[in-house]
Amino acid sequence: MEKVKPRTLSGFMELLPEKQMQMERIKEILRETYSLYGFTPLDTPVIEASEVLLAKAGGETEKQIYRFTKGDSDLSLRFDLTVPLAKYVALHYGELAFPFRRFQIGKVYRGERAQRGRFREFYQADIDIIGDGSLDIMNEAEIPAIIFRSFTALGLSKFKIRVNNRKVLNGFFSVLGLSDRATDVMHTIDKLDKIGAEKCRLLLLDGGVSESAADEIMSFISIGGNTTEKISALDKYKGRDEVFDTGLSELSAVAECLSEFGVPEDNFEIDLTIARGLDYYTGTVYETTLTDYPEIGSVCSGGRYDNLAEYYTDRKLPGVGISIGLTRLFYVLEEQGLLSDEGVTAPADVLIIPMTEDLKAAVRTATTFRDAGIRTQLYSENKKFKAKMSYADKIGVPFVLFIGEDELQKGVVKVKDMQSGEQTELTADEAVRAVAGAIAKKNAAKVIKEK
Amino acid sequence: MEKVKPRTLSGFMELLPEKQMQMERIKEILRETYSLYGFTPLDTPVIEASEVLLAKAGGETEKQIYRFTKGDSDLSLRFDLTVPLAKYVALHYGELAFPFRRFQIGKVYRGERAQRGRFREFYQADIDIIGDGSLDIMNEAEIPAIIFRSFTALGLSKFKIRVNNRKVLNGFFSVLGLSDRATDVMHTIDKLDKIGAEKCRLLLLDGGVSESAADEIMSFISIGGNTTEKISALDKYKGRDEVFDTGLSELSAVAECLSEFGVPEDNFEIDLTIARGLDYYTGTVYETTLTDYPEIGSVCSGGRYDNLAEYYTDRKLPGVGISIGLTRLFYVLEEQGLLSDEGVTAPADVLIIPMTEDLKAAVRTATTFRDAGIRTQLYSENKKFKAKMSYADKIGVPFVLFIGEDELQKGVVKVKDMQSGEQTELTADEAVRAVAGAIAKKNAAKVIKEK
Repeated sequence: MEKVKPRTLSGFMELLPEKQMQMERIKEILRETYSLYGFTPLDTPVIEASEVLLAKAGGETEKQIYRFTKGDSDLSLRFDLTVPLAKYVALHYGELAFPFRRFQIGKVYRGERAQRGRFREFYQADIDIIGDGSLDIMNEAEIPAIIFRSFTALGLSKFKIRVNNRKVLNGFFSVLGLSDRATDVMHTIDKLDKIGAEKCRLLLLDGGVSESAADEIMSFISIGGNTTEKISALDKYKGRDEVFDTGLSELSAVAECLSEFGVPEDNFEIDLTIARGLDYYTGTVYETTLTDYPEIGSVCSGGRYDNLAEYYTDRKLPGVGISIGLTRLFYVLEEQGLLSDEGVTAPADVLIIPMTEDLKAAVRTATTFRDAGIRTQLYSENKKFKAKMSYADKIGVPFVLFIGEDELQKGVVKVKDMQSGEQTELTADEAVRAVAGAIAKKNAAKVIKEK
Repeated sequence: MEKVKPRTLSGFMELLPEKQMQMERIKEILRETYSLYGFTPLDTPVIEASEVLLAKAGGETEKQIYRFTKGDSDLSLRFDLTVPLAKYVALHYGELAFPFRRFQIGKVYRGERAQRGRFREFYQADIDIIGDGSLDIMNEAEIPAIIFRSFTALGLSKFKIRVNNRKVLNGFFSVLGLSDRATDVMHTIDKLDKIGAEKCRLLLLDGGVSESAADEIMSFISIGGNTTEKISALDKYKGRDEVFDTGLSELSAVAECLSEFGVPEDNFEIDLTIARGLDYYTGTVYETTLTDYPEIGSVCSGGRYDNLAEYYTDRKLPGVGISIGLTRLFYVLEEQGLLSDEGVTAPADVLIIPMTEDLKAAVRTATTFRDAGIRTQLYSENKKFKAKMSYADKIGVPFVLFIGEDELQKGVVKVKDMQSGEQTELTADEAVRAVAGAIAKKNAAKVIKEK
């Protein structure tokens, strides 16, 4: 038979078992953490009608869409989880309770130019809180707590949640008479980290901003100190613009409850340079950076928006949300060697190797272990002993159980700890307890290990 | 702004939050159960190169494929999880340990004619064990245990795992001189349940089977009794055909260890009428039916095959696998009213309603609950009390916590059990313990409740 060369498309992540286990663990931790904040899991189709999915899209996004026809239908693959959420909320409005809090961890598709670390199929892990007509600022204040708990649960400690408020920026620009150019100016400010203050100022001047306004902007975005000090410094700008004042009171509300939300000051920072390119954010905006890896950029971003579903409904549905680009994050963590090998990455906790013709005792032992919640594989292939042990090594199983005539007569199993090489004879119940204890420790290991 | 009518494509399941929680629970239980047997989770791309995905396909399958071009690439959406597994194993052969045991729960796509209960995007939950050159019969013997534990964990007890062996059938037909027509005859036998013995026999005769052979077939497939009795009856056919004898010894091996694998006799049956239409099964075949709902057909099927990846590689990769059509199963369970409402279906276990201006105490309490692993939502919208309680009702949250000035002074929270209506004043720690206990009970409820 002529063979077809097996291959996986470029830009599509396909992991080997050990890595996949780490990825699964990350998804599980995010599901658990998001759930702790009252978010309900959603799952929407990967394929949507093009006219629904592209109601809003345009420009770059539209070019990247996987769009095709099937029969008479014009179909597209989702390119994010926000548009499907907007559709979902507009479509099921009458059956939902607001604020509607949902998380979704799912694959999205963008036919970008393939390059290292860029993916065409990738996971996003999103949470959003949608209000009906209005949404209290406390929802925005809660987001840093969710980011903090998620990242901590993954094993990270050296990260910074950066927060700003679009109203603060907009109000400030309005005072300078730069409202018309606010978007351009924000785009320039956004680059501050990359290009430095000097170049940033020059770019502003090039963009037609006056010297005095440019100086004001530069001094504004370089306001320093801790959170309290920054809020105090911003207080001095108050009373000149209503939008600014609203933004500042929102920013204060977000900063005020941090300690009650359990977010340490070290992991939080007001960063007046953050604008989040997207025009649709209107209040608090968030970015999250890994302290030791600034070059990676933000790994969890989002913000407050006023109108989730305006393309589908006249109802005003304001919301706040964040998104983690999970596939890219995973890729970066692996590349930086930050994925821990201390957790569970083997497909089983125990490999039972029977040393007798009759496998009944081995099967019975396997069932006992499984009843106790221990992931157990029975090795039944007719191979030499050496091949069996090499299999155990290859799958990285932490414990091997031998059951031979000797053990059967004594009513024990021989347990080999594959890491220490130690062998002990235990009853099945003792073995269950010993293995369960060791596995619980492995399970408690964080999936990310900082250097 | 002109609005686009929001809609979800027909044939695509999109669930409301409560139902989605039940679906998530089912997926979680399958992940957990499959893991207990040493299967490793895999995740392969939804999109594959058409020449890879369709190496084997043809006829009906090919017509249903979602196939399209993007740039120069001819792409297709996967229509099952088996072909991607074959590709994966062929592609990563050198990096895998064999037997390679993987599970995958993922969406697949088939552009079938839309009709009630038929889906174009649906989840399959598959496990497969792939051997390198050979695979011991014990792997086939283990499959009923996995089906039994999965279905039991979901809450089902009235189901039957039906098992047959293709070699037994093939050998038997060979003795009758019907090898050439085995496929046709099997297709006819497969219909026995639907059309009855009389019609089945007539169909055989119509198909050119002699009267004597048809009688032999009918008497063969009506062999009755329990598992031991059926094996004994089959023993009498031994010695006439080598393939039959091999098949019978395999079938015996599968039946022999049932009790050691923890499978009750009641949930198992040798069914000589099962052939599984697909030509590629070569040994044990499995079907699983819900005793009270025979009309649904098999909800978990599969079998042993000799050559997983022959379209990609010359290596012989025999395997055994089963698949649950999860979306259809969920649809049927819901339609039959078998999904339990006793488990957790609310997005949160606790809704905290602050009755004070300053929310710090409420936030602190929320953090305490979350630290204890209790899913907690803080309700901060500026609404009337009645609206807040109606929100609590609508999301179905089991506990509401009130924190007012009174409670703050006394150092307590007021906990309302939404089911009983009972209100108690407890310290935060007492409240955590009370809620955790009640939620643990809810979590222990099975997702399926038989009538």
